[in-house]
Amino acid sequence: MTDSQGDGVGGATAMDLYEKLTAQGDKVRSLKTAKADKAEVDAAIQLLLKLKVDYKGVSGQDYKAGCPPSESAVVSNNGQLGNGAEEDTVDPWNVATNSAKGVDYDKLIVRFGSSKVDQELVDRIEKVSGQKPHHFLRRGIFFSHRDMHQVLDAYEKQKAFYLYTGRGPSSQAMHVGHLIPFIFTKWLQDVFDIPLVIQLTDDEKYLWKDLTLEDCQRFAVENAKDIIACGFDVNKTFIFSDLDYMGSSPEFYRNVVKIQKHVTFNQVKGIFGFTDSDCIGKISFPAIQAAPSFSNSFPQIFKGRKDVQCLIPCAIDQDPYFRMTRDVAPRIGYPKPALLHSTFFPALQGAQTKMSASDANSSIFLTDTPKQIKNKVNKHAFSGGKDTVEEHRQHGGNPDIDVSFMYLTFFMEDDEKLEKIRQDYSSGALLTGELKKMLIETLQPIITAHQEKRKNVTDEMVKQFMTPRSLDFNF
Amino acid sequence: MTDSQGDGVGGATAMDLYEKLTAQGDKVRSLKTAKADKAEVDAAIQLLLKLKVDYKGVSGQDYKAGCPPSESAVVSNNGQLGNGAEEDTVDPWNVATNSAKGVDYDKLIVRFGSSKVDQELVDRIEKVSGQKPHHFLRRGIFFSHRDMHQVLDAYEKQKAFYLYTGRGPSSQAMHVGHLIPFIFTKWLQDVFDIPLVIQLTDDEKYLWKDLTLEDCQRFAVENAKDIIACGFDVNKTFIFSDLDYMGSSPEFYRNVVKIQKHVTFNQVKGIFGFTDSDCIGKISFPAIQAAPSFSNSFPQIFKGRKDVQCLIPCAIDQDPYFRMTRDVAPRIGYPKPALLHSTFFPALQGAQTKMSASDANSSIFLTDTPKQIKNKVNKHAFSGGKDTVEEHRQHGGNPDIDVSFMYLTFFMEDDEKLEKIRQDYSSGALLTGELKKMLIETLQPIITAHQEKRKNVTDEMVKQFMTPRSLDFNF
Repeated sequence: MTDSQGDGVGGATAMDLYEKLTAQGDKVRSLKTAKADKAEVDAAIQLLLKLKVDYKGVSGQDYKAGCPPSESAVVSNNGQLGNGAEEDTVDPWNVATNSAKGVDYDKLIVRFGSSKVDQELVDRIEKVSGQKPHHFLRRGIFFSHRDMHQVLDAYEKQKAFYLYTGRGPSSQAMHVGHLIPFIFTKWLQDVFDIPLVIQLTDDEKYLWKDLTLEDCQRFAVENAKDIIACGFDVNKTFIFSDLDYMGSSPEFYRNVVKIQKHVTFNQVKGIFGFTDSDCIGKISFPAIQAAPSFSNSFPQIFKGRKDVQCLIPCAIDQDPYFRMTRDVAPRIGYPKPALLHSTFFPALQGAQTKMSASDANSSIFLTDTPKQIKNKVNKHAFSGGKDTVEEHRQHGGNPDIDVSFMYLTFFMEDDEKLEKIRQDYSSGALLTGELKKMLIETLQPIITAHQEKRKNVTDEMVKQFMTPRSLDFNF
Repeated sequence: MTDSQGDGVGGATAMDLYEKLTAQGDKVRSLKTAKADKAEVDAAIQLLLKLKVDYKGVSGQDYKAGCPPSESAVVSNNGQLGNGAEEDTVDPWNVATNSAKGVDYDKLIVRFGSSKVDQELVDRIEKVSGQKPHHFLRRGIFFSHRDMHQVLDAYEKQKAFYLYTGRGPSSQAMHVGHLIPFIFTKWLQDVFDIPLVIQLTDDEKYLWKDLTLEDCQRFAVENAKDIIACGFDVNKTFIFSDLDYMGSSPEFYRNVVKIQKHVTFNQVKGIFGFTDSDCIGKISFPAIQAAPSFSNSFPQIFKGRKDVQCLIPCAIDQDPYFRMTRDVAPRIGYPKPALLHSTFFPALQGAQTKMSASDANSSIFLTDTPKQIKNKVNKHAFSGGKDTVEEHRQHGGNPDIDVSFMYLTFFMEDDEKLEKIRQDYSSGALLTGELKKMLIETLQPIITAHQEKRKNVTDEMVKQFMTPRSLDFNF
């Protein structure tokens, strides 16, 4: 099962079976009404029962008339299925694994019911966009998707889509890991030439953290500067803070209410693990993260159109929000958003956890000096090398658990150079200190350049990006 | 107990006892730390335990350090306390009683922990406002309050307050009962010369009813016309639809989020009876009805001030929302709103239930013709008279259960005339048909005049009332 509605019994998807079941239910009722022959009725009931069993096998859900199969029901118990003890934990607030290699992403695709970004899809993106695929795609950093083929099919027929990504502004400090979705989103914006909306969930951070509204709004503006420094086109990009935009757009609030009407507490409890002790703000927040997935939430950009499909590039921990969104979409008459999921950027200490913005030594911050970068990598980057030079030369290091090597896969663009490093490190020709030096020399100019660009982001530019307005969108 | 924090053991309020308990807890701890004499420690603990028992008796709640007594915890189980079977049901969605006289309002004051509008308060309103009290006050139609003395104390010291009331626009049709809070609010606005905000909860109606967003917004505008026809001063009145205003005022949404952070699902479950199957929109809605209680939700009117106290005239079924609001207010640094509660306007069929906008014969609608009014009263108004004229002449009728008489207490302004009717009907001198005729002749001109005034309410006027703007407010 590579998709919640993917291959099942004899190739039938959950949706196929759902439709067959509905038709068969109608048939049984009409046979009974017509007082048909008993054998005929019994046969029809037998088929109905078999379809119900098949449906449950494929969808993981009991059939309920009028309720099409749900994507979010596939994954229950807050991101864990089956014998949870052995599973990685991945939800919007927690990412944890026992493996030094990090989360098992292939298993996650199965659990979340998404699809793998395979070579065929990467080739197709190259063909449709006419551009060499970003190294995040080539190297499996954006490793999972939902409905990308549908987006590309439509794009080939001149039907545009738009991009939506976001950030929770929980502090002023952003680290290099936070840039991953933005670097990739900028690439998508450039190669497809489409509009982009970026949500800063300052309301979410207020609800979840011990912060004031004013703190969260200040962090939103500071984070916006780092995002703008990634080079987004102001004519195609709208950045908004929830605390501002909710109160600036009746259309946005109307979509929030529509979503809120179609999601029960039971559902968010299953998807997000909320409890009765959670505040009502947390409980209703998922609708606010869902709303930008629908184009009529932005009437300035899409002139009231509700049919422009949305593509969301994000880290896979955000998927629960969008499984919920995709369940709701057809019920309120909107297209489901498509997704491209990234892996997590590992902490310097190892891939077992996501980085923490509150631990200065857990990652490289966008404000770090070249010297700090050097010290942090040398001191804290978990090494896959051997204990002594002699051992390392003899047995080689393990790049799969080496954080410096992992960071290079994110930030070194040259595939051949990276592959040579991998081989040399594995063979023992390359020592840990030499690998770290390469990472330091790769990161330092990237961070320095970011700081230069950020310095040039004026308050006036922030205001421009954050003003609801028309964008270049001609479809 | 006339207030949740009112008279209790030896005159101590729940808040008094809470403070004593906190101090006593500190004392016990410091005695233990100081390894004081066992007898002394034991005596301190005995007093602590006694205070806990007293506190529970007065507040109805267990003492919990750091949690001051809550108003909403006084009433649990969705408006019913104790042996619920014998109690009236009163919450925002249900009003039911077994008594032909209607809900027992004295019991409700005790259960809700509010205070009675007694003669002393009516006299004081007369003194402070310099106006004869409205007959709704003189006749106990606005029968219950919270903190009215505090509002009047402040007003005497030139500290203004503002009024907030509202309506859920569930249909185009409004009946005379819907006018009660507006008639009284207009009087309050006139005699105190203060600003007023009127919330149309079109989002609530969308969430609770099988209606589209467009229906609810249309009903909001239609209802606004009936409200404006009551004669509100456009320079002192702001009418808003949630679906519009939420998206027009970042300050309003900020207060909604603040409230949502400070109320848990457990709390709204206790107050409103929500269940896990309710949609997340319903669960978070109470914060939206609470937000207009705080003056900085309207920066156009109050220029960012958060300290202007709010007085809410409303039917008592809305009290659960405002008990919650009053619990939250001090925790987010705002003054608690004061309240004036009205009784329910009875259905033509009798005082056992509230009127229903969906049953045309249950009440007099604002669109009824003089003929329809006559027919409805004659045909449907429940009579407290005897079966035959002879019996009636001999034993008299019962005005306490007679709907025509009840309606006259709402709409006949002349106290002496009303009292004479009461006496004549009780003695049997006045027959049911004659009483009904008096009601018909009282209602017909009121409804006709309302229709005239409504006809003159233009779309332009509605727009004016519903535009966020500065009001006459000079304090």
